[in-house]
Amino acid sequence: MHAYDQVAIVGVGLLGGSIGLAAKTRRIARCVVGIGRDDAKLDAAVARGIIDEATTNLAAGVQEANLVVICTPVDMVTETATQVFTHAAPTCLVTDVGSTKLAIVEAVERQMGQKSAQFVGSHPLAGDHRTGAEHARADLFEGRTVVITPTKATAPDATGRVSNFWHAVGADVVRLTPEEHDAAVAITSHLPHMVASALAAATPRSVLALTATGWADTTRVAAGDALLWRQIFAANRTQVLAALDQFDHHLDALRKALLEEDCTQLERLLAEGKQIRDAVGN
Amino acid sequence: MHAYDQVAIVGVGLLGGSIGLAAKTRRIARCVVGIGRDDAKLDAAVARGIIDEATTNLAAGVQEANLVVICTPVDMVTETATQVFTHAAPTCLVTDVGSTKLAIVEAVERQMGQKSAQFVGSHPLAGDHRTGAEHARADLFEGRTVVITPTKATAPDATGRVSNFWHAVGADVVRLTPEEHDAAVAITSHLPHMVASALAAATPRSVLALTATGWADTTRVAAGDALLWRQIFAANRTQVLAALDQFDHHLDALRKALLEEDCTQLERLLAEGKQIRDAVGN
Repeated sequence: MHAYDQVAIVGVGLLGGSIGLAAKTRRIARCVVGIGRDDAKLDAAVARGIIDEATTNLAAGVQEANLVVICTPVDMVTETATQVFTHAAPTCLVTDVGSTKLAIVEAVERQMGQKSAQFVGSHPLAGDHRTGAEHARADLFEGRTVVITPTKATAPDATGRVSNFWHAVGADVVRLTPEEHDAAVAITSHLPHMVASALAAATPRSVLALTATGWADTTRVAAGDALLWRQIFAANRTQVLAALDQFDHHLDALRKALLEEDCTQLERLLAEGKQIRDAVGN
Repeated sequence: MHAYDQVAIVGVGLLGGSIGLAAKTRRIARCVVGIGRDDAKLDAAVARGIIDEATTNLAAGVQEANLVVICTPVDMVTETATQVFTHAAPTCLVTDVGSTKLAIVEAVERQMGQKSAQFVGSHPLAGDHRTGAEHARADLFEGRTVVITPTKATAPDATGRVSNFWHAVGADVVRLTPEEHDAAVAITSHLPHMVASALAAATPRSVLALTATGWADTTRVAAGDALLWRQIFAANRTQVLAALDQFDHHLDALRKALLEEDCTQLERLLAEGKQIRDAVGN
């Protein structure tokens, strides 16, 4: 017995594809419908068993769905949600995987009114610097955290069911307000990306041959798609700017200790960073 | 037939231990002597086949050596080299694995005079955030780059033989001046470490549960030993401060674009970082 008869996924990339694979592998959905813009890519996803059916027609794709997961870039989530609510059944649950939550949740609630009770914002803290359905994995969410951000406007039943869906694909679920979520990921995800990008850009090509694993690790996320990340930064602008200030504060302290040849302070600051890094492991 | 009868390694940690293992596995040395301060650790390294013999007496350990590799923290390389040159045969080659080169090479040449013709500074761009001989691997140097920094004071024959040694353990060898080396690694290694440390320190413990692979990658090197890194930063202070300025320039440009909501510029800067990161791969 499947928990859902039909799950529709809008945007069959790394995350959407992995949700499809996980929903099929774990028998969460009888049928997974993939909705996209590129017929060739959708056909390839069907051929690889990532989705059962595919369509470029969103209205048709969501019509019979019990759950729609919006996996478009953050800039398109709100517009897509509006279309989904227009064409889906009133009982259909809608969620997304956007990396920012406040702008999306506010816009959906403003535009959809009562209907938005069926919408629960989600953000799986899973992914890869590689994109595309060809890298989709059924186990992408196993042991990872998915933040869900229901509000007062959300139906409690919808919250519970979306939470169960993420549990079913293997994730741990954490519930935060959209504001709490955005402030946290500004520090844990958006700030590292911006710092990694600046670090990569600050490296002259002439010394790239002298980079080793340290540089490769520290800059890895800078390989992410520039357009997608520009949209994420823009959608969480205030929190990212605050996180940058926080980072500056710590980097300036290190610089000052080095400038003043204050070895005790320099070692103390490095030990502070190490302690926090060690708390996470790997 | 081994290239060396005896290779002595001062400091049997991750690098020293891996050099020992590689020299034994690849039959570069008939006998590898490990010199350290801790009898128990040295005995463990002998038991694990990382070194053939062990001693806490540096004078005795280097007496018969044809090549001494100094693998102490950067702060102790010069003093150790002085002791090695005092007790080793005049034909004995001496090299090190310090992450900075100018301070070490200048000090050795100043203190050792003519004898320093047998000294060739080295820096293997290999390692791990884990330390200790227990993580030593015979293949640590395979496909990695080792920078050597001979000067006018170095005997050409010594340069050639040290270069051959690193080739023999599997590394590619790049020759730079000590100044060129220090400027390059300030950008490729020391700057990433300082940035990663600030990033880790800027992350409140309350949001650590919301970190994912991006944060883990970007901050990984911050787990390095605080004392060792304080010494590296101090030994390459001017170049690290210059690298920090370079980084600031790029981070400020990103911040300005975000602050001014200049999406075109923000995306352009992110694309610039991505392009450089993509040039390295993995």
